[in-house]
Amino acid sequence: MRLVPILLATAIAAALPSTAIAHGARSSADGVAAGRTPATSAPSPLRVAETRISDASMAVAAQLRETALASSLAWDITESLTTEVGPRLAGSEADARAVAWAQAKFAELGFDRVWTEPVTFPKWVRRSERAEVLGASAQPLVITALGGSPAGTVEAEVVRFADLAALEAAPAGSLAGRIAFVDYRMERARDGSGYGPGSRVRSRGPSAAIRAGASGFLMRSAGTDSHRNPHTGITRFDEGLEPVPSAALSVPDADQLARLLARGPVRLRLALDCGWDGEYTSQNVIGEMTGASRPDEVVLIGGHLDSWDLGTGAVDDAAGIGITLSAAVHVAALSRRPARSIRVVAFANEEQGLHGGNAYAAAHGGEVARHQLVAESDFGAGRIYGFNTGAPAHARAAAARIAEALAPLGIAPLDQGGPGPDVIAISRAGATWAWLGQDGSDYFDLHHTPDDTLDKIDPAALAQNAAAYAVFAYLAADAEGDFGSAPASAAAPD
Amino acid sequence: MRLVPILLATAIAAALPSTAIAHGARSSADGVAAGRTPATSAPSPLRVAETRISDASMAVAAQLRETALASSLAWDITESLTTEVGPRLAGSEADARAVAWAQAKFAELGFDRVWTEPVTFPKWVRRSERAEVLGASAQPLVITALGGSPAGTVEAEVVRFADLAALEAAPAGSLAGRIAFVDYRMERARDGSGYGPGSRVRSRGPSAAIRAGASGFLMRSAGTDSHRNPHTGITRFDEGLEPVPSAALSVPDADQLARLLARGPVRLRLALDCGWDGEYTSQNVIGEMTGASRPDEVVLIGGHLDSWDLGTGAVDDAAGIGITLSAAVHVAALSRRPARSIRVVAFANEEQGLHGGNAYAAAHGGEVARHQLVAESDFGAGRIYGFNTGAPAHARAAAARIAEALAPLGIAPLDQGGPGPDVIAISRAGATWAWLGQDGSDYFDLHHTPDDTLDKIDPAALAQNAAAYAVFAYLAADAEGDFGSAPASAAAPD
Repeated sequence: MRLVPILLATAIAAALPSTAIAHGARSSADGVAAGRTPATSAPSPLRVAETRISDASMAVAAQLRETALASSLAWDITESLTTEVGPRLAGSEADARAVAWAQAKFAELGFDRVWTEPVTFPKWVRRSERAEVLGASAQPLVITALGGSPAGTVEAEVVRFADLAALEAAPAGSLAGRIAFVDYRMERARDGSGYGPGSRVRSRGPSAAIRAGASGFLMRSAGTDSHRNPHTGITRFDEGLEPVPSAALSVPDADQLARLLARGPVRLRLALDCGWDGEYTSQNVIGEMTGASRPDEVVLIGGHLDSWDLGTGAVDDAAGIGITLSAAVHVAALSRRPARSIRVVAFANEEQGLHGGNAYAAAHGGEVARHQLVAESDFGAGRIYGFNTGAPAHARAAAARIAEALAPLGIAPLDQGGPGPDVIAISRAGATWAWLGQDGSDYFDLHHTPDDTLDKIDPAALAQNAAAYAVFAYLAADAEGDFGSAPASAAAPD
Repeated sequence: MRLVPILLATAIAAALPSTAIAHGARSSADGVAAGRTPATSAPSPLRVAETRISDASMAVAAQLRETALASSLAWDITESLTTEVGPRLAGSEADARAVAWAQAKFAELGFDRVWTEPVTFPKWVRRSERAEVLGASAQPLVITALGGSPAGTVEAEVVRFADLAALEAAPAGSLAGRIAFVDYRMERARDGSGYGPGSRVRSRGPSAAIRAGASGFLMRSAGTDSHRNPHTGITRFDEGLEPVPSAALSVPDADQLARLLARGPVRLRLALDCGWDGEYTSQNVIGEMTGASRPDEVVLIGGHLDSWDLGTGAVDDAAGIGITLSAAVHVAALSRRPARSIRVVAFANEEQGLHGGNAYAAAHGGEVARHQLVAESDFGAGRIYGFNTGAPAHARAAAARIAEALAPLGIAPLDQGGPGPDVIAISRAGATWAWLGQDGSDYFDLHHTPDDTLDKIDPAALAQNAAAYAVFAYLAADAEGDFGSAPASAAAPD
């Protein structure tokens, strides 16, 4: 594993006053006395000069880590969701079943409070999709409609572009009566950095194609696999453009189309039956394990409950649900609860525009200061290798203590990462994010494809994730002091 | 790599008289004089006390091996067939295009003679296929109809059987109004030995299900992958039984169904639109590179031209076509042709019942003695690791010489293997088979699935195959003496 050279830990050590360094050398008994907040309800977040995590908390975290590592609970939850509900496209009949599943699961797992909050969004449906090469090399190609694509059947010649920039450079009208095909090959990377340019083809390609006059859009899937499983995902059409049928080819099918085009002109029939169909109201499902002394303050963790329809949404994102629910359960099972509450959010409709995360921020944006830290698990089920937080200087020693407790799991403090997709909005409102960075090397082999199924998850890696989230959530919830969450307008540069 | 302990070479060395052992020590010049047949046309196969391969032939073979290893011709042919024709289900419109492709390709590659021979068979068509779990865990399952399945829609409860024996033990009538599901997991093996029990579920399962009263049949795919790509393949229904819709689930879908069944009863809708549709006449396409002195005798190599419809039939069996056509081209490019002709057969409709191989045997069964050796490449594109032949004792020294020439390619003489599927019939008629055993460890990840596409082939491994076939075909064609082919009724135990 390659680590980013400038480690957060090094930076912290250099910046810390000697008292903070000494903190780590305190006896465990001292730590209990020094590090715990009195068990009284506090109406506003505890502001201290320097946020600290006690040795006693560290000792508890070490035990918690081992308990979570040895538990199959994250797997059991993930197995339950992917098996019993299966695919759960936002707005589908299965969306409602997923919400019911989550409510029941939170209750079954003993969460102290379980509630739902409405999330309303436009509903997109997929009915059928088909593409075939016409003529002398007639053959079907495996495609999937991009989320947001309209229905339509297009029979036209295909024009290949090596990448998005090439398509964007096509003169207006130059693709009249043609299908644009962007043949960009996404790069594999542990941190998923190849997905930026890969997903931009999906989000911006259709509009670029329309501007050049195209009557259809095809792209090589934004994926790193080599299976006949195309990658779907949401697209958008720019204001004022008339949407055209837009789809992704599986990687082998993109190879095949490129080989055919290298021989000469290719006519293709693209037939999609899909589209927007009114509005739907789903729910963010929220469960809380009540904190011992500052129950109104929360460490927010979670994943998203919806999935694309092609697979059973195992790595995206039943794993995130399994990891964070189980983490909260492990924390709650401690003989002594942490000061603050652990809030787990199963977000609605992440896939089609972060609707659940945006609804959460709209509902809770006024309470950001009560969000100790926020973190979403939505990058699969690979082992966590890095930890970071957007916390200001006064909380960096505490962040380093969390990193220290995560280190035995193979996790290093890294100067990278950011909030998961559903906590972007609340982070923008001022909540401080944490990042538990998962190894995403294989994530884009599976993401948004039929292959996103339970068998792709390594139970041991999933347990490592659950242990990391449990340790993180516990220590953040039990810290003496805050991590800098404050309304964005009021947040001073630290 | 594990080798079978009792090696053919050891057995040969022990059995050979000392003169044969000495053979290998002859000078190259002696070898040329001793090992070549006069360049006259021979009306009947050359029968000698001991078949020999000269040192001169061995020297030529060594050069041929390097030439073929460095060539991309096998790849180019495989790429052309899979790209330009694509999937080529026997009896489909693409079957005719494949035949035309093969005729043109043989001609383009300079084969001296190219001809076709008719192959007539019942035609099976696949139109649509769908399965879905009904009720509280409603979700689609990825399936594919088994070749030979009738159309039909069945909505019924599923009964799981761990293996074929368990289904065969089900009492008559016990599955009335149910769908039988055989959940047998095929084993991975280099020699493909897991496919025997795996494919038996497919061939015998549907009839067993019908005998127990089932109205539908499902099986875990006979495959070793973990992708949402089900494995099709032909099935048969025993005489007197009324066929029922029969399909294979992808491996992850079989896992999912098993998990659902572990929770309680599962109702499923299985809807297949497929079935037999009259008769079709395709063609075995045959090309020959004429031998220098015994042109009426042939070394027969080949692959099959048809494929299943789900993939582009790259490893099954465009690779076999690419390997054997290119091997013949490399041999023909030698400054001095071997004594006998190299015949390459692109067999029609292997997949649905060895129709091309059977037609070949019916047409040429009377000429088996002119078939020096017969070998089909139909086990993918993995590296060849073993060589064997059914040759009798008088030809074993020559077989050992072929093995010696193959050894630099990583190929060992092994006491295993047998004729490829399309040369079974001609072997039964008395032609002596050769086996160039390919590493099939990954073959059943791809075989009969949508994932059988060109990107799965390693060009270097394909070239190793072509080199092995070139060396084998050349040495067999140039041997002084025969390998024991004789009409089966006349064949004496050697």
